[in-house]
Amino acid sequence: MNQKNIFEQIKEKRSFLCVGLDVDLNKIPKHLLAEEDPIFSFCKGIIDSTHKYAIAYKPNIAFFESYGSKGWESLEKVSNYLSVNYPNVFSIADAKRADIGNTASRYAKAFFENLSFDSITLSPYMGRDSIEPFLNFKNKYAIILSLTSNEGAEDFQFLTSDNTPLFESVIKSSKTWKNSEKIMYVVGATRSEFIKKIRSIVPNSFLLIPGVGAQGGDVSDVAKAGMNDQCGLIVNSSRQIIYANNGLEFGIFAREEAIKLQKVMEKELINKGII
Amino acid sequence: MNQKNIFEQIKEKRSFLCVGLDVDLNKIPKHLLAEEDPIFSFCKGIIDSTHKYAIAYKPNIAFFESYGSKGWESLEKVSNYLSVNYPNVFSIADAKRADIGNTASRYAKAFFENLSFDSITLSPYMGRDSIEPFLNFKNKYAIILSLTSNEGAEDFQFLTSDNTPLFESVIKSSKTWKNSEKIMYVVGATRSEFIKKIRSIVPNSFLLIPGVGAQGGDVSDVAKAGMNDQCGLIVNSSRQIIYANNGLEFGIFAREEAIKLQKVMEKELINKGII
Repeated sequence: MNQKNIFEQIKEKRSFLCVGLDVDLNKIPKHLLAEEDPIFSFCKGIIDSTHKYAIAYKPNIAFFESYGSKGWESLEKVSNYLSVNYPNVFSIADAKRADIGNTASRYAKAFFENLSFDSITLSPYMGRDSIEPFLNFKNKYAIILSLTSNEGAEDFQFLTSDNTPLFESVIKSSKTWKNSEKIMYVVGATRSEFIKKIRSIVPNSFLLIPGVGAQGGDVSDVAKAGMNDQCGLIVNSSRQIIYANNGLEFGIFAREEAIKLQKVMEKELINKGII
Repeated sequence: MNQKNIFEQIKEKRSFLCVGLDVDLNKIPKHLLAEEDPIFSFCKGIIDSTHKYAIAYKPNIAFFESYGSKGWESLEKVSNYLSVNYPNVFSIADAKRADIGNTASRYAKAFFENLSFDSITLSPYMGRDSIEPFLNFKNKYAIILSLTSNEGAEDFQFLTSDNTPLFESVIKSSKTWKNSEKIMYVVGATRSEFIKKIRSIVPNSFLLIPGVGAQGGDVSDVAKAGMNDQCGLIVNSSRQIIYANNGLEFGIFAREEAIKLQKVMEKELINKGII
């Protein structure tokens, strides 16, 4: 999986939607709790229902880990299910890991080799040698936190040194790292005023944009601010799609929500002349 | 487990040593590979051999995750073994997690409730609402990255805004957060020139100091720069202790290495008048 493949999916599906898999056993349809692995069954149901409209899936690792080794087994199944059945879809381990060389290599092995994710989200606080180990894998991507959608983003990400806020320093600095063409960036959808600026610094990089829907971000605003001529955007929605309904027909409702977002995205792709 | 309990252990064991459990199946004694769970057997062997000289253990989560759900099962056993057999020892999940409210709560649940760790390491990039969910648990601690021992620390941690480098901003800002008395800080042993400064900002907080031994930090330098009247230091050593020998008697060699460090620590505790 590489950026070209992602762009092909975007054109084919007329969408740049990522579906976030934040699996909470208290929120999934009750009938699934009788299954052997409710977490996997739920994810499978969501993926099968939405894959025509989504170019990426993003399991939120915390939700799996909170169910211990059983949750990790479910994650293994989800990762395998995606890579076997939907190899053209871009899979993102939303893990936000952060550690140094030796340990970073272990995380890379965990997510890229033992699991078969195409990418992983990472926190940049520890700098270059905490990211580069993830960039040594063919067709695998590191997605670095730059400007996040939460309130706490104000605490450090806007601290300004030499007239450059930290979130910009992270991007500028990371461009100088080895294999930096395999870096993508997380930019919150609630920050569309800054997406434009970030796009000017990394004109060709994909941006992963969470925060649409429940968190208040708007797809059209994001597209206007950040789309490049290969789209360059992967916009995530989680709860709005996966918890659209908790009955037997949860998949149908999830698909409807995915289609709603896909329609907005299609319009933006047409506006930009991409499709 | 609270700071008072940690201090009691320090006085009793005349040590402020943490043993880091970075378990690599390629490095552990070959005879353990025949066991049902070599990772757990190795950790158990190290813990049993060194617990008289160590006040804390720090499993490095990446190493467990790199063995998938099996590795996570081993982690569950290690966490359980520590809490049942050595309840006075401070356990640290070296996870360096970083995510927002909802997701952060999941990680907290994973490490504090499903597993029974006393503390977890966290990356501060996302700010207050990525840390506070960990501070809602009684007698559980969040250990935030401040100034790390790796080369990449230079990339962002020293960026200066209003005359304050980022690593200091992290500490100063975090002091204003809810339940901040349950925050500790990671400061690399290779940075003893800055440990003194950090100690002046947080006179009462425990500092977790990795980077002694293999990474080049010196215990006495660290103690002189950072010890407060309750010690306030937890100094970690991993490879030097756990891979001292890979034969049948690995535990004995590990204990000898632990004792070497404990002796240096004892001297510093005496110098400071703590014991």
